[in-house]
Amino acid sequence: MTPRARKALVLHGPNLDLTGRREPAIYGTTTLAQIDAALAERAAALGWSLATCQSNHEGVLVDFLHAHFQDCDAIVINPGALTHYGLSLRDALAAMGVPIVEVHLSNIHARESWRQHSVIAEIARGQVIGLGWYGYLLALDALDRLVPAAGGA
Amino acid sequence: MTPRARKALVLHGPNLDLTGRREPAIYGTTTLAQIDAALAERAAALGWSLATCQSNHEGVLVDFLHAHFQDCDAIVINPGALTHYGLSLRDALAAMGVPIVEVHLSNIHARESWRQHSVIAEIARGQVIGLGWYGYLLALDALDRLVPAAGGA
Amino acid sequence: MTPRARKALVLHGPNLDLTGRREPAIYGTTTLAQIDAALAERAAALGWSLATCQSNHEGVLVDFLHAHFQDCDAIVINPGALTHYGLSLRDALAAMGVPIVEVHLSNIHARESWRQHSVIAEIARGQVIGLGWYGYLLALDALDRLVPAAGGA
Amino acid sequence: MTPRARKALVLHGPNLDLTGRREPAIYGTTTLAQIDAALAERAAALGWSLATCQSNHEGVLVDFLHAHFQDCDAIVINPGALTHYGLSLRDALAAMGVPIVEVHLSNIHARESWRQHSVIAEIARGQVIGLGWYGYLLALDALDRLVPAAGGA
Amino acid sequence: MTPRARKALVLHGPNLDLTGRREPAIYGTTTLAQIDAALAERAAALGWSLATCQSNHEGVLVDFLHAHFQDCDAIVINPGALTHYGLSLRDALAAMGVPIVEVHLSNIHARESWRQHSVIAEIARGQVIGLGWYGYLLALDALDRLVPAAGGA
Amino acid sequence: MTPRARKALVLHGPNLDLTGRREPAIYGTTTLAQIDAALAERAAALGWSLATCQSNHEGVLVDFLHAHFQDCDAIVINPGALTHYGLSLRDALAAMGVPIVEVHLSNIHARESWRQHSVIAEIARGQVIGLGWYGYLLALDALDRLVPAAGGA
Amino acid sequence: MTPRARKALVLHGPNLDLTGRREPAIYGTTTLAQIDAALAERAAALGWSLATCQSNHEGVLVDFLHAHFQDCDAIVINPGALTHYGLSLRDALAAMGVPIVEVHLSNIHARESWRQHSVIAEIARGQVIGLGWYGYLLALDALDRLVPAAGGA
Amino acid sequence: MTPRARKALVLHGPNLDLTGRREPAIYGTTTLAQIDAALAERAAALGWSLATCQSNHEGVLVDFLHAHFQDCDAIVINPGALTHYGLSLRDALAAMGVPIVEVHLSNIHARESWRQHSVIAEIARGQVIGLGWYGYLLALDALDRLVPAAGGA
Amino acid sequence: MTPRARKALVLHGPNLDLTGRREPAIYGTTTLAQIDAALAERAAALGWSLATCQSNHEGVLVDFLHAHFQDCDAIVINPGALTHYGLSLRDALAAMGVPIVEVHLSNIHARESWRQHSVIAEIARGQVIGLGWYGYLLALDALDRLVPAAGGA
Amino acid sequence: MTPRARKALVLHGPNLDLTGRREPAIYGTTTLAQIDAALAERAAALGWSLATCQSNHEGVLVDFLHAHFQDCDAIVINPGALTHYGLSLRDALAAMGVPIVEVHLSNIHARESWRQHSVIAEIARGQVIGLGWYGYLLALDALDRLVPAAGGA
Amino acid sequence: MTPRARKALVLHGPNLDLTGRREPAIYGTTTLAQIDAALAERAAALGWSLATCQSNHEGVLVDFLHAHFQDCDAIVINPGALTHYGLSLRDALAAMGVPIVEVHLSNIHARESWRQHSVIAEIARGQVIGLGWYGYLLALDALDRLVPAAGGA
Amino acid sequence: MTPRARKALVLHGPNLDLTGRREPAIYGTTTLAQIDAALAERAAALGWSLATCQSNHEGVLVDFLHAHFQDCDAIVINPGALTHYGLSLRDALAAMGVPIVEVHLSNIHARESWRQHSVIAEIARGQVIGLGWYGYLLALDALDRLVPAAGGA
Repeated sequence: MTPRARKALVLHGPNLDLTGRREPAIYGTTTLAQIDAALAERAAALGWSLATCQSNHEGVLVDFLHAHFQDCDAIVINPGALTHYGLSLRDALAAMGVPIVEVHLSNIHARESWRQHSVIAEIARGQVIGLGWYGYLLALDALDRLVPAAGGA
Repeated sequence: MTPRARKALVLHGPNLDLTGRREPAIYGTTTLAQIDAALAERAAALGWSLATCQSNHEGVLVDFLHAHFQDCDAIVINPGALTHYGLSLRDALAAMGVPIVEVHLSNIHARESWRQHSVIAEIARGQVIGLGWYGYLLALDALDRLVPAAGGA
Repeated sequence: MTPRARKALVLHGPNLDLTGRREPAIYGTTTLAQIDAALAERAAALGWSLATCQSNHEGVLVDFLHAHFQDCDAIVINPGALTHYGLSLRDALAAMGVPIVEVHLSNIHARESWRQHSVIAEIARGQVIGLGWYGYLLALDALDRLVPAAGGA
Repeated sequence: MTPRARKALVLHGPNLDLTGRREPAIYGTTTLAQIDAALAERAAALGWSLATCQSNHEGVLVDFLHAHFQDCDAIVINPGALTHYGLSLRDALAAMGVPIVEVHLSNIHARESWRQHSVIAEIARGQVIGLGWYGYLLALDALDRLVPAAGGA
Repeated sequence: MTPRARKALVLHGPNLDLTGRREPAIYGTTTLAQIDAALAERAAALGWSLATCQSNHEGVLVDFLHAHFQDCDAIVINPGALTHYGLSLRDALAAMGVPIVEVHLSNIHARESWRQHSVIAEIARGQVIGLGWYGYLLALDALDRLVPAAGGA
Repeated sequence: MTPRARKALVLHGPNLDLTGRREPAIYGTTTLAQIDAALAERAAALGWSLATCQSNHEGVLVDFLHAHFQDCDAIVINPGALTHYGLSLRDALAAMGVPIVEVHLSNIHARESWRQHSVIAEIARGQVIGLGWYGYLLALDALDRLVPAAGGA
Repeated sequence: MTPRARKALVLHGPNLDLTGRREPAIYGTTTLAQIDAALAERAAALGWSLATCQSNHEGVLVDFLHAHFQDCDAIVINPGALTHYGLSLRDALAAMGVPIVEVHLSNIHARESWRQHSVIAEIARGQVIGLGWYGYLLALDALDRLVPAAGGA
Repeated sequence: MTPRARKALVLHGPNLDLTGRREPAIYGTTTLAQIDAALAERAAALGWSLATCQSNHEGVLVDFLHAHFQDCDAIVINPGALTHYGLSLRDALAAMGVPIVEVHLSNIHARESWRQHSVIAEIARGQVIGLGWYGYLLALDALDRLVPAAGGA
Repeated sequence: MTPRARKALVLHGPNLDLTGRREPAIYGTTTLAQIDAALAERAAALGWSLATCQSNHEGVLVDFLHAHFQDCDAIVINPGALTHYGLSLRDALAAMGVPIVEVHLSNIHARESWRQHSVIAEIARGQVIGLGWYGYLLALDALDRLVPAAGGA
Repeated sequence: MTPRARKALVLHGPNLDLTGRREPAIYGTTTLAQIDAALAERAAALGWSLATCQSNHEGVLVDFLHAHFQDCDAIVINPGALTHYGLSLRDALAAMGVPIVEVHLSNIHARESWRQHSVIAEIARGQVIGLGWYGYLLALDALDRLVPAAGGA
Repeated sequence: MTPRARKALVLHGPNLDLTGRREPAIYGTTTLAQIDAALAERAAALGWSLATCQSNHEGVLVDFLHAHFQDCDAIVINPGALTHYGLSLRDALAAMGVPIVEVHLSNIHARESWRQHSVIAEIARGQVIGLGWYGYLLALDALDRLVPAAGGA
Repeated sequence: MTPRARKALVLHGPNLDLTGRREPAIYGTTTLAQIDAALAERAAALGWSLATCQSNHEGVLVDFLHAHFQDCDAIVINPGALTHYGLSLRDALAAMGVPIVEVHLSNIHARESWRQHSVIAEIARGQVIGLGWYGYLLALDALDRLVPAAGGA
């Protein structure tokens, strides 16, 4: 009998819809659609289903998490600027009870000082920072090892 | 002639819709619906009408306040994580010109250090903190004394 | 057989003996004797006995707590200015092992910045702040729910 | 051949819909509709078209900016309380690549200390602060000189 | 009978005599003489007389203000580096009792961190920052509205 | 008819009983009894009566103030080390509603950094610091001018 | 001729009377009486007389020191919570002019951050921290070497 | 033989020339000329000669001190706003080697927070603060005791 | 012709030799030898040669880097506790001029506050944090994409 | 059967090899060899074996600890200046899992402010500070009680 | 043909006119005239002309710099106390566009903490600190190498 | 009789072995060997012998100093990154009891903020900063004047 696929949430925070178009020297030229496509391909290969949400509204991201409360196995999130002040998002993530990997396209530690503090980091399992769009795939690879194929959170 | 009932706004900030389900060791097992029911019962007994709003969007909470601008006598609010950064919510509350009691389910002073600073506290009339869902009823009791039954804001 | 009444300690810190006479715009016009009378009435109604102490000496408050070590079920305390530096009082309170509610007559968060930090808050169960003398009654109400009528701490 | 008009975005942040009604001693009695009308008149005289957005939702303001990505020449923004924590808005503004003038009705430097830090200021071209509703017109005047009539951003 | 012209003081702080010659990428190429000429022209059109002073000595600026004590209606000042430490100048400005607009050629919020704090801002009516030499004219425009043509300070 | 003498309280905080004996290089060799005698002589000459209290207990000093609530015209106080943390004493002093002059034997600004902040200073009328025992007499001289001979606080 | 015994003061600050009964995981189960007995035994063996004082009142501890001014050779003190704010006690200790060893039952550096700063430490000769009741004996051992048997402070 | 009079320098810092005219609620209505006259009268009575300087230029004050290097016995100074940043003045005062009393008309500890730190205080002998123009006389009285009539600095 | 393999340095800082043996709840049970073996396998698969160094001496790590100056294409480093103070190591890494990925076994953002600041992060290309020993492989995967197979640094 | 002796590690950090020769007013005149001899004598008397290491290299101290991993019962360490920044040493000590007593010859709290923070203190069992070379013996005495003679760590 | 001499400005800030007379233990006994003579001799030997200015007025130093705008090749400056707050001087120096060496007679890092921050240092080429009057000569030696004999700035 | 040459130690900290090869825009192109050769030549001319040490190990530098304890007259040191955290090195330098000049190739005050604090500066005689390799020669020149040819430390 085929085990059900594990399910990961993928959240993209504010301004990530412009990825590939805004400030390419910092964020690269790969678009969000291309990133999502690559993630989909990797997820399929690893045996994961994905539910994806991009929003410029913190509330939408929180609503999205609540909608999957007790219905996901892992979370990949690039919180965008909410990384630094999105405490509602943080509380929502903490409530989910599954492993979370925080992804940043650019090395936030080599930019403005306020970008170096993440309110998400404390409740995440780990971070992948500064490795561009490929960082999303690495995050999924890591979660694949952390969450056994047969189990949920 | 029966005086019109005094009117209180009840605002629940982000993630409070999960109350009773998330982290029960911290937030208890009483659900938001149960809290709202208890508030409704107490309000009826004291001669108050209530207008209630829960949202994970700061903007929705601000819009809700604006919709009741000059049309309420008191406010009970648990701002959730917006307690710590929701300056737009603060400005909206300050504009209302009625007594506000800030409620927190858990003792925010015994948790992470960032939870100890409230941007709302300065413009509230008072706070009820750490006394669980019953704190909402205490807040309403206090407002009942602060706002005489015959008057508005 | 009638169960023994639960017992609460009520502590009033420095300068609270002047309540009702000093700076009434901040602290109101109700005297401490009136507050204690109201507390006594409510306690009787709820089935609590009270032991009350006001002192301008931190040491007297600590001695009072020690005298009731393992002989009380809950504590209501308005530490006055000791709120902000009374670490001996804090340690004595922490040693008592019963639920504590901290009360402040005025909203300490809307006054001088040094009044916003309480060294007691971390070890209290909760706080009732800015709701005037009525806050003492709310505190007792809350403790009444936290401590079942049949049991001790 | 008539050159196309230059296009400016006008953004009003949270609570500015109450302008003229809330705390008039601070914010004056001119309403937002009156400000927008005055801006429209001045824009017409100078040869600018305007697209205007007021919202209490940071996400709506960000969405509005994205909708005009590479389709505007300048931005006038009064971020309201988002001035102090709206990092998503900041990133969205930075992505637009056109001159931005930040406007505040009141002198934020003569109010609460937290109002003195703007997360927008660093990526703006300039600020007009404390000069009331007329400050919007001054901002447009300034942008009129910074953006030549024939060109875009 | 023609009403007497309103009188504005224009103060330029240290190093502004080099404007147009030093670091043109930051301060532009317009000279101080050109700025003063443009101000004179605008003042004449609006019905203001001007008294102007540039000095690299804080004391000279303070003396100049004292010489016009109770003999001016408004002040435009670019304090130069005194913005950040000129507390004597601040006290002198505060004593004048007329509306003050603080002008900065460059966006001080996008430069060294110490340039972001102004000791003048708290006692000014407003600021015009980062809009180049034209900011002086905007400041005068704003004062023209704040000070009715018939009156003094 | 002889007007009643004005009445001043003189408070000496902890360790001042050792004055003249401890660390004479810092505090001088004049004893507290000698200081009190000099004060008594000066008070008699100026037409003041004095009530004096030295204690190493903050509570005793607060009790002493309460005992003279609405029964004194001015206060001279050297709070000793309570200068830096005696917030109960501060609140008691603030409640008295009469002019207060704070005296320090040594120049507290030339000693350990923690001695440079006084929690009393904000609610005092003034300070006389570093001028030895003679500072008490100067404080009384100053109060003699601030409080007219016929009146109370 | 038998030389007179050297004399050490032993001071126990607030809440130490509960030692052995409060929070034994932190403070151990040895009572203060047992500690004092062990100290007495060791003192006798080493040729010291002891004068001991426990109080929850800072003022009592200061009075006790003054009573032994110039009549002791060394001091062992566990200031309890006064360690962190007892500046009056500090000044009294500094005035004594004899070697002081500060003792803490628990490792204050592994607890709340505010417990890590001692206002006493600077004027003590040394500290023995975290070694339980036995730390008192070590302190006496150390003083025995610092103060020769024939002499005073 | 008549001993030569002792000589005191009196320095008034920036904006003190406006004393009596600016912000009388803070600084009083006594003019600087009146203060200087009162000082002259007291000096004559005590056997002192005075050399007085008011300037809005820190450099003039420093030059004045240098002109009296090794030719004065004491200094009374109200540094005005230079109190808070006049480090050149501080170094000049420190070089003089005579007792200095720092005077402030208003209680700088009850005003803006930046007024609470004096860069002069550390090298002064003492301060007289908040006691109005009379504070100058108290300062001179204190110096009269500190500097014996027969000697120089 | 076979292109030469790209060469990566792998550095393990202090205490990493105990990995798998010390505090397994934090660092896991995989030994350093096992990690190195997994890295070797992955490197071979990707076409990289590795040079590996573990040391408890910052100087040895710096010497190792110097020995490979201009002779490597990328660096994977887990600096251990040197992450937080190893500025010599930082300067050595910065001098190498090749992409660096910083790896941490545990989520340093969920531990002591001092572990949250990395002096290496600013000069790294990115970080992989909290993902256990597998993080090393992810780092190598990322570098494999950043450094084309045919080229050097 | 004779039980095996308990084994303690004794670590001396940088510059302690100069003890007795450098700055004797601070560190005393007893040499490290003498200290080690006294420790050896006391250890023998108490039934301990000692392994001792002095090094000016943090790495050597870490290596020494690793060499005794799971082969010692207690540690006495004077980390020298590494006290304040030796985080690698801290991590190595924490990994050892045995009681640690930190020793300092001088009272680090009465010296430069940076000497007052120890990165070791949090993971030590206790500290003996300011009691000279004898402090080492006191540390061993304390460990002798903490570690029963028959057992290991 | 003889090339024109290179030209260096030498600026001495406030109180340096007293050098050799004030606090010789800190500043030495060499007078400013002697320092200037030594500089003149060295300058002649190296082929430089000097223009020298000492003033206690920051404005005079700024005016002096402006008078040599684009007419000098290098600057040696000892800013005196302006080192720590002379931002106008800093801006004037930055505008000059030539190499600047900052000189301090004493080691400012071994004195009061506020002397350790220089607002000049960031825009200087280098500093020579604590090496007495000879430091001026070293500064000129350094500039001699930095500015080739034939060229200007 | 020829006096023995004075002896100076020259220490080069971590990464200085790469001088001339790493980041030449910051550190120049002169190699360490060339610097040492220039120093040797100057030393010979001035009558000094040199002992030189470069190491990337703080411990080696400390050992080197100890090896020359009481056997040198002066020290020239460029601590590299140890400038900012090498407290063991600091203590070793302080123990040497001879004049120390700290050298930095680049102007550390114009780089990252953490480079602006030197833990060495307080115990050095002086600093030569930002003047490139020539700064070493200036340091030796300065020491040549500070240490008379005939004497030792």
